[in-house]
Amino acid sequence: EEEIPEDHPRYEDLLTRHRIERGVEKGITHLQGMHAEGRGSAFDYLLGEETIPSAVEAERAAAAHLLLADHPVLSINGNVAALVPAEMVELADVVDADLEVNLFNRTPERLEAIADHLREHGAEDVKGLEADARIPRLDHQRAKVDADGIYDADVVVVPLEDGDRAEALAEMGKTEIVIDLNPLSRSPQVAEVPIVDNIIRAVPNITEHARDLADASGEELEAIVKEFDRKRALEAAEERIRSGL
Amino acid sequence: EEEIPEDHPRYEDLLTRHRIERGVEKGITHLQGMHAEGRGSAFDYLLGEETIPSAVEAERAAAAHLLLADHPVLSINGNVAALVPAEMVELADVVDADLEVNLFNRTPERLEAIADHLREHGAEDVKGLEADARIPRLDHQRAKVDADGIYDADVVVVPLEDGDRAEALAEMGKTEIVIDLNPLSRSPQVAEVPIVDNIIRAVPNITEHARDLADASGEELEAIVKEFDRKRALEAAEERIRSGL
Repeated sequence: EEEIPEDHPRYEDLLTRHRIERGVEKGITHLQGMHAEGRGSAFDYLLGEETIPSAVEAERAAAAHLLLADHPVLSINGNVAALVPAEMVELADVVDADLEVNLFNRTPERLEAIADHLREHGAEDVKGLEADARIPRLDHQRAKVDADGIYDADVVVVPLEDGDRAEALAEMGKTEIVIDLNPLSRSPQVAEVPIVDNIIRAVPNITEHARDLADASGEELEAIVKEFDRKRALEAAEERIRSGL
Repeated sequence: EEEIPEDHPRYEDLLTRHRIERGVEKGITHLQGMHAEGRGSAFDYLLGEETIPSAVEAERAAAAHLLLADHPVLSINGNVAALVPAEMVELADVVDADLEVNLFNRTPERLEAIADHLREHGAEDVKGLEADARIPRLDHQRAKVDADGIYDADVVVVPLEDGDRAEALAEMGKTEIVIDLNPLSRSPQVAEVPIVDNIIRAVPNITEHARDLADASGEELEAIVKEFDRKRALEAAEERIRSGL
């Protein structure tokens, strides 16, 4: 990672690919995660590989939701762990959220590898290993969550999430913040706050907004949440992908 | 592969991912190939996962070029070998072309694994193992080709090719046929015949056109070649990706 010069025009793309490749090698990321990341990179390319204004608003709304939450939880899958481990630990710290490992292709080995990886990046408590509760309407393996984690959360950040699970979580009444580069995929479509941005940019941005809003009143935070227009954000991203090519 | 029902709405996408995953497992496909395939799949999604009319014309022009060629060569990398081994062998057979293994991340193990894989799918002669000639203006490893293969070819099919090599081959004066799902990437931009289509559809289509044109006269083939407008084909693909979202 140190070998990639920061001023390289493809720095973020190279960094992303490098981290995912290392994730596959370390047993953190499923091979299909490499495919998903490639798919995302095409949308990022079409977006211009930058955080568009509507994503800035979404990231600020996400920060406000997290600060208002009683029990915010950040969900971590194999790609998230590979791409932004330290960044997720930092966000959890700033908004006082739990971190919960949540895998589409769930094996005990990958759960442990990801929990270890997060701990190496500063996480103290990692949830998702108990799996003593179930999300309704999902098949057994995909439904597993911690009773005192995602199951109990009022606000969840689910980056790069499978559509079925995003939908099931929304149906549980949770305030869902989704990070996904394809504005038309199901997860951002069902999210209260869809963030159409590269996770490598999005997570540090949310953290920065949360720091910025640390002293804001509940009313100010509520105003930011209320002002955010999810439909407009999705449309703006779609429009950018169309016209930005 | 037999487990994927052919009438599944995502049949081609599932088949592609399955084949690439097997390719990585077999040591044929580099891990970055999984990423490249994911990137391609996003563009295919935007194209509507179908062969658009301008691609049909490009595929017909490619068939005409191959039939007119003195020495056509089909270049095979790790993704091509994983995705369309039998289809490339069949095309080579129909247009009397050579098959040459040509790797971006070149190792003796992968070269052998790919040659074996092609032989398992019916290839008799596989070039690319001698590497006794060089493409000018490329660094040592990337420049390696066979003297009686790509180096000598007048028409080359280079699917999913790296931009530098596509450019260097074009500068050698070869008629280049590129298959790539991103119309703006450098390889299709420098190709005489850019085919913006999924390789899984494109290769059998070229073969079908070649069979259809088997008895065509040189003049008829020349007319097809001349009529094909590469710039219009690239624009049509770009337009489709923009509006198809």
